[in-house]
Amino acid sequence: MFNAEKETQNIIAFIQDYYQKHNLKGAVLGVSGGKDSGVVSALLCAALGPENVVGLTLPCHSKPEDARDANLVAKHFGFEMINIDLTDTYDTFQKQIDALGDYSKEEKKNSEINLKPRLRMATCYYMAALLSATRGGTYLVPMNGNLCERFVGYYTKGGDNVGDISPIGNLMVDEVIAVGAVLGVPEQVLYRTPDDGLSGMSDEQKMGVSYKDIAKVIKGEEVQQEAYEKIMRMHNGSLHKLNIPMYEPESH
Amino acid sequence: MFNAEKETQNIIAFIQDYYQKHNLKGAVLGVSGGKDSGVVSALLCAALGPENVVGLTLPCHSKPEDARDANLVAKHFGFEMINIDLTDTYDTFQKQIDALGDYSKEEKKNSEINLKPRLRMATCYYMAALLSATRGGTYLVPMNGNLCERFVGYYTKGGDNVGDISPIGNLMVDEVIAVGAVLGVPEQVLYRTPDDGLSGMSDEQKMGVSYKDIAKVIKGEEVQQEAYEKIMRMHNGSLHKLNIPMYEPESH
Repeated sequence: MFNAEKETQNIIAFIQDYYQKHNLKGAVLGVSGGKDSGVVSALLCAALGPENVVGLTLPCHSKPEDARDANLVAKHFGFEMINIDLTDTYDTFQKQIDALGDYSKEEKKNSEINLKPRLRMATCYYMAALLSATRGGTYLVPMNGNLCERFVGYYTKGGDNVGDISPIGNLMVDEVIAVGAVLGVPEQVLYRTPDDGLSGMSDEQKMGVSYKDIAKVIKGEEVQQEAYEKIMRMHNGSLHKLNIPMYEPESH
Repeated sequence: MFNAEKETQNIIAFIQDYYQKHNLKGAVLGVSGGKDSGVVSALLCAALGPENVVGLTLPCHSKPEDARDANLVAKHFGFEMINIDLTDTYDTFQKQIDALGDYSKEEKKNSEINLKPRLRMATCYYMAALLSATRGGTYLVPMNGNLCERFVGYYTKGGDNVGDISPIGNLMVDEVIAVGAVLGVPEQVLYRTPDDGLSGMSDEQKMGVSYKDIAKVIKGEEVQQEAYEKIMRMHNGSLHKLNIPMYEPESH
């Protein structure tokens, strides 16, 4: 049974231990306005103090609600927010692609959906290095992903799966919410229907399976056969994102 | 002892096996004009046929020689090259950063050096998805890194260490050159002094150690004490790029 009070204290100690051991200072993370980044921000503020946490809003043809909810979290926990609009960067890149040929919206769909998290990752690291250089001390880029998403591969390789420390990567969605409730993450953020802010669909609609069923499969509990098969198909189909084949010579 | 003829055939078979097993089609890779991407291109052409290999030149405030040598490789092995100039995208991004504050060139140095490989990775994946959608069949993004670079952490996390298959990741620099010689990679490319094309220094100047010494340390051979200590310091100091701490809850 998941003990939210205890696990919350454990995660805070886990972050503090790692920072102390490696003599680190702060954290720069993308704050989307959703629960995962809201809970991770709250954990970082508790572990490092809000003065060492910098949140980024990284709009890229985004809905205005995203930044509004992100700022709500920042205000609640008292950490600094920086807005870096990636729309122009994204559009400038697209112009170079459009110069290559006349590709349809449908043909570019997968390319575009995954470009945004990659630009966001690059921006988080840009800012982490910049703040390390200007404020002194090393800033890390924490990851916001949870176990349910990781299990089915619901992330962009080279995007939101790149980071330096993962506070909630082994927590299921309901456990993330339980930790967020302990920390007092605003309900508007904690209970917002998760979506990627990119495709216009909720995460569950996009995946075609529920987080509840994913959690059950991870825990070995029973779910409907069709859901089970879909979840395992997604899981197995995503393993290539983690296991990169590398040739091993017979001898050196 | 490294048998270059045999290992070359093994790597080609390794690539072919993986592609057949997963029903894949092609490869999109950044071709820098240096030996690593030259050798990987040659291996891919031998494994998949040059018609399934697409090289990208991704200039970003780059020297013209880079694209010239990249095109030399492509012409020699008969694969398609596409040029996507990232200079405007990079400059547009920098404008957003400059709007945040008055940062000096020195303060932005680390941020800028690592932004380029991240933009290049994002572009390779963009094109892999685009070609998969328009040409049919799945295109992967192979990695170009070698063992010496990996050992000392000489790569950008979320940049050139992101990819789908690594043909030479366990080969040392002299082994990569030996494989390239077997495949007939043009000497101008194979023996070009390796540099990142970003900092204006050669890789060895930048690292302050030689690839020869790194190879010796990997093989357990003796090197000067000072070099040994520097190499191990780089190695140990880079392990954080690979081992991402993730909190494990006491129970679910």
